Amino acid sequence: MNYYIKEGLDARKDHVLFEDGDYKVVYLGTYIGEGDVDVNSYLIVSRREGFLLDPGGYKIFPKVISNISKYINPKNIKYIYMCHQDPDVAGSIPLWRALTDAKIVTSWLWIRFLPHFGFEDVDSVAYPLPDEGDRIKFGSTTLEFIPAHYLHSPGHYSIYDRKSKFLFTGDIGIAILDEPKLVVEDIDKHIEAMKPLHQKLMASNHALRWWLSNVRQYDIEAILPQHGSIIPKKYINRFFSFLENLKCGVDLL
Amino acid sequence: MNYYIKEGLDARKDHVLFEDGDYKVVYLGTYIGEGDVDVNSYLIVSRREGFLLDPGGYKIFPKVISNISKYINPKNIKYIYMCHQDPDVAGSIPLWRALTDAKIVTSWLWIRFLPHFGFEDVDSVAYPLPDEGDRIKFGSTTLEFIPAHYLHSPGHYSIYDRKSKFLFTGDIGIAILDEPKLVVEDIDKHIEAMKPLHQKLMASNHALRWWLSNVRQYDIEAILPQHGSIIPKKYINRFFSFLENLKCGVDLL
Repeated sequence: MNYYIKEGLDARKDHVLFEDGDYKVVYLGTYIGEGDVDVNSYLIVSRREGFLLDPGGYKIFPKVISNISKYINPKNIKYIYMCHQDPDVAGSIPLWRALTDAKIVTSWLWIRFLPHFGFEDVDSVAYPLPDEGDRIKFGSTTLEFIPAHYLHSPGHYSIYDRKSKFLFTGDIGIAILDEPKLVVEDIDKHIEAMKPLHQKLMASNHALRWWLSNVRQYDIEAILPQHGSIIPKKYINRFFSFLENLKCGVDLL
Repeated sequence: MNYYIKEGLDARKDHVLFEDGDYKVVYLGTYIGEGDVDVNSYLIVSRREGFLLDPGGYKIFPKVISNISKYINPKNIKYIYMCHQDPDVAGSIPLWRALTDAKIVTSWLWIRFLPHFGFEDVDSVAYPLPDEGDRIKFGSTTLEFIPAHYLHSPGHYSIYDRKSKFLFTGDIGIAILDEPKLVVEDIDKHIEAMKPLHQKLMASNHALRWWLSNVRQYDIEAILPQHGSIIPKKYINRFFSFLENLKCGVDLL
């Protein structure tokens, strides 16, 4: 069982972040850095099948599929998860739909919006998450879907992977990076980079504290957000304390 | 100067809602009612040019373009507005981009997300709205962009059209309808239909009251939301009072 989260990883390349036999958690090298909002897409591989987290928009689709192919046949993706409904998270969904028979995992609230991305027959592929969260057994792990509502979206979740102990936090912990550094090196500097985005996007301090009370019970090895850098174990308490004390969203109206 | 908002209008058809010489506000007949989330798209016409509000997703694109063609040449659309970034509002943006040279009007926050819908060169067409709102002179009217942040999206606005005195409220005032009635007939029943969606989507009562304090200074002829039914003048006070007293979003965590 090995962790490969360390300083200096290049966000423009794919990296295995955790490995245990045939079980892998992979960052898909989705940083482009040309002024667009960059996304972090992740792949969990177990028993030669895949669970894809936040596939991203159209533009990165070729890169994502090419990097997935290094680990599994993309046709063997069983689940595609969208932490919420924004185009950066889900814009490429119609392309994935054409390529795989994957179930689309997202809040019940966003399932009904999927046809607007340009495909029909949503019910046959939908795996709607209830407000209170859910668990999905996938290969040799269990993924826990932990409510993270209003951070920033209603119907937003974090995922705890019991095997790697990674917490995938969607929009919580995001940053826009100057340099493509996949892992946080200077937490003080990184908190300054996270702050304006969190003040703007997160609904309120009460919502942040509610989420913290949901996730603090877990033994967490790293925080993996959907934009920006991975927060390694040694900085998690600093990150949680930053959120706990942040006024944001409606607090600032 | 004529208003045509009255009970019994069929949401499956386009309707002129206001007319003053060559100035028109048109509902584009975007209700489909097949289990998807239906959207209300509107067109403002002045001096043979168009301002399109919330064009909607892929599926309704042919209907929208066909209905627009009854009033103006779709190539003469000068602005396309998205009240926020959800696919139901903006999924068809790449198609519009191919057809017109329209400026895309939306929050500065969402401009950077547009490439994920599948097009490049965003800066040349972007009209980013600042947090504090803005005004755009369009033909013989002025459109005021009034902040409606966190209702439900950060970077969300209402538009007040000075000429028609219509308030386009985006996600505020939405409902999922059983019947395709474009104009509210029974406000008590309609408040019951609006309530669960507003409880879930709107960030907090504080955010609602903040928005009410922004819009109450205007002389409003009707409320035109992006889903559901138009709220005519006689019911606006009831609607505002419903919002003023609603606990929602983070209030309920």
